[in-house]
Amino acid sequence: MHARDYLAQDGVGLAQLIQEGEVSALEVLEAAIARIEARNGEINAVVLKLYDQAGQSARTTAAGAFAGVPFLLKDLGQYMADVPTSSGSRLFARRTQAQDSTLVTRYRQAGLVICGKTNTPEMGLATTTEPVLFGATRNPLNTAHTAGGSSGGAAAAVASGMVPMAHASDGGGSIRIPASCCGLVGLKPTRGRVPLGPYGVEGWGGFSTTHAITRSVRDSAALLDISSGEEPGAPYYAPPKPRSYQALAARDPQPLRCGLHLKAFSGADLHPEIRTLTTAAAKACETLGHRVIPTSSGDLPIEPTTFKDSHGIIALAHVAAAIDERLAELGRPLQDDDIEAVTRRNYNAGHGMTAAQYAWAQNRIRKHGQIFARYFNQGIDVLITPTMAVLPPRLGELDMMSDDDATYLDILDGMIGFTAIFNDTGLPAISLPLDVSATGLPVGVQIIAPMGGEGLLLSLAGQMERAGLFDASLKI
Amino acid sequence: MHARDYLAQDGVGLAQLIQEGEVSALEVLEAAIARIEARNGEINAVVLKLYDQAGQSARTTAAGAFAGVPFLLKDLGQYMADVPTSSGSRLFARRTQAQDSTLVTRYRQAGLVICGKTNTPEMGLATTTEPVLFGATRNPLNTAHTAGGSSGGAAAAVASGMVPMAHASDGGGSIRIPASCCGLVGLKPTRGRVPLGPYGVEGWGGFSTTHAITRSVRDSAALLDISSGEEPGAPYYAPPKPRSYQALAARDPQPLRCGLHLKAFSGADLHPEIRTLTTAAAKACETLGHRVIPTSSGDLPIEPTTFKDSHGIIALAHVAAAIDERLAELGRPLQDDDIEAVTRRNYNAGHGMTAAQYAWAQNRIRKHGQIFARYFNQGIDVLITPTMAVLPPRLGELDMMSDDDATYLDILDGMIGFTAIFNDTGLPAISLPLDVSATGLPVGVQIIAPMGGEGLLLSLAGQMERAGLFDASLKI
Repeated sequence: MHARDYLAQDGVGLAQLIQEGEVSALEVLEAAIARIEARNGEINAVVLKLYDQAGQSARTTAAGAFAGVPFLLKDLGQYMADVPTSSGSRLFARRTQAQDSTLVTRYRQAGLVICGKTNTPEMGLATTTEPVLFGATRNPLNTAHTAGGSSGGAAAAVASGMVPMAHASDGGGSIRIPASCCGLVGLKPTRGRVPLGPYGVEGWGGFSTTHAITRSVRDSAALLDISSGEEPGAPYYAPPKPRSYQALAARDPQPLRCGLHLKAFSGADLHPEIRTLTTAAAKACETLGHRVIPTSSGDLPIEPTTFKDSHGIIALAHVAAAIDERLAELGRPLQDDDIEAVTRRNYNAGHGMTAAQYAWAQNRIRKHGQIFARYFNQGIDVLITPTMAVLPPRLGELDMMSDDDATYLDILDGMIGFTAIFNDTGLPAISLPLDVSATGLPVGVQIIAPMGGEGLLLSLAGQMERAGLFDASLKI
Repeated sequence: MHARDYLAQDGVGLAQLIQEGEVSALEVLEAAIARIEARNGEINAVVLKLYDQAGQSARTTAAGAFAGVPFLLKDLGQYMADVPTSSGSRLFARRTQAQDSTLVTRYRQAGLVICGKTNTPEMGLATTTEPVLFGATRNPLNTAHTAGGSSGGAAAAVASGMVPMAHASDGGGSIRIPASCCGLVGLKPTRGRVPLGPYGVEGWGGFSTTHAITRSVRDSAALLDISSGEEPGAPYYAPPKPRSYQALAARDPQPLRCGLHLKAFSGADLHPEIRTLTTAAAKACETLGHRVIPTSSGDLPIEPTTFKDSHGIIALAHVAAAIDERLAELGRPLQDDDIEAVTRRNYNAGHGMTAAQYAWAQNRIRKHGQIFARYFNQGIDVLITPTMAVLPPRLGELDMMSDDDATYLDILDGMIGFTAIFNDTGLPAISLPLDVSATGLPVGVQIIAPMGGEGLLLSLAGQMERAGLFDASLKI
């Protein structure tokens, strides 16, 4: 398959070509491998190549909605039987599990050809992808800048044309932030929509959910069609899923009432250019027949310190528990070069806080869920915000090995200030590549729906894509 | 209404008589009040009488499935606007909230006439109902013994004929245990089935759910029809509900494969008489066409210490957080006579454990959920166990003011050893009054279904009731 033809297609497009016999799954895989080999030296998106396994899959996969489509798995949270998963961490490096995760089984049943695993910061803890273990992933649109995190490897792989779409996961913004940094589509589904088991079960107390970063809206929708649905033993159920997300993505929504919120929940200052671009994106929605209603001060009474503390306590408690579990597995104490400096601070924090504080945090995030439920219940269909309050930082700015916690947290507040509250509350949210800064860096816009509303998000995103409000296809 | 007629009816029966004009809602309320006044001096089930409010309701309520049926609310967790809720605790005594809880609104819309509130141990923490604040509730079947807890007031009220059914809640067995102690029907629905908001949101990290203790299966079903369903802002969704639980309760299930498990998850010894009676109850199910399959040792690999620790850490963390929240509300530190000795130990424990331990506990209970999912997935429809490993203790045995923690925990392990794991995992479970010990104390049998399976439990319970395997109607 010619590189140009490969790069012009999204996942659904490739599946159609294979289905119609225009090209074979092996030829498509060869094109993917060629692209990975051509670009990965510079970008460092793929940290484990699985070309032999992928060849096997491409030769044997006949059925499924994505039969023969090359795909990459994030190297965190989801397991392929006996394939190492390193979680971007020296401590977790080359950990294996005996069977495929439920989600991987669904991917395989849909015919996806998993040809490698993508880079992630240590334990998915950062909004940039620069682990000591594997080194930095570079943003294909500007290699001096971060591709975002924690699904930075996935975003960089998709933005550089290695694959049309890649698995990603999101516990504080880790799908949406890299999608925003790399000019891509990143949907975080409703809590419980996509299975996390059997090894993960519940990431960070319910914060983490998993799906993909894609170039087209229909890919995100079609992939969710095959990956979503209950898993026995899971703690959370999502509201019933629609018959077809892909059909919803192809159909314009009714005229919507869209809230517009420009104040970061973390209290971080919003970059003036992002403010302007997000407002313009909302205005553009009005041209599609939707109404935009800016939030007023009492609409979303979430106090920044409460938000940050409650999110942090729960996330760090789970980081500490996961490290302890790994140490028990290895049968040894923590060593100096096991984890990065920020991770060690987080580990100590998880042990320094009390169980009562965890319960306090959980109660607070449930109250935040009620606040959003009340907000949507008063006649708002979706909420529009920036994805990030800041432009993608340069590589090295968010330094996981630094002792300067204040600078680290300051940048983090700007990057997760609009996203993490929707991990806490479990609401579906999508980042769309609506614009580019004066300096050429992508700026994503986030749209949030009530629980179970990812179908609505995909309808709206599809409408915006068809109307030309964004185009995330690869510009060769 | 004649007392004999009042006592002969369940809730659905009373609603029918009122609907048909045989009796007025006010006459029914008078009968309820007469019974409360006659029996409460001895039993101490009702700790707050709301006769005036109830009279108002009885005069104005015309519509709803339970229009005019007298009802009692547990004095914990669910709020009526501006009516004191004491949670069985001096610290929480006479706390009020500004609006009705969602569940209370649904009860009112169904026409239920709430005529009082029932006793509970402090913060619902014990399996007996003997708070310092209100004194002990006595078991109507043997007043020297406990009515169970924490919904002991509710069970005693129903077992003594004050009301045909009463609201109850269950965070470790608090519906099922008192139902078992008092020879009644107690269904704990699936996590997320019945709303807990807006004040509670998520009891004990998802352990606690709320419903009722009833004399008839159809009351439990009909009440669930009107009380269940999503609440915006809730963290958990249950699987979709059936059209009518009452219809399911009236219809025999298909022949079922029933697991039988006689080993307490807490490791507590099973009372030999309870072992015999539970085995006999399972045998009786076979006469209805079901097949009983005893569990083998590898079926439910749950380690008692892990179960007890994980349940305890999460519950006590939330106890500590709730006490802190109350102290913040009161603007003062904890005083000596605020809380009972056991509660103080729990409070200190919640502060003595780390957030990382909470995360560890949450991971463990999610694994337990997977264990039960796998068990049911291998072709088991429901699981039969004893409700308790021990007979109802005498009043005073489970002493909340004692310093003897070992004895307290030992009795507790016997009482919650079969129930609490289904709070952790969120599975629906029902206690049915299948037999009576040689000493005349009721012995409940617990039946558990997969997530969302309360309709199946009600079908089976209805079949058993119709077949005469139990009869919880009031014997006057």
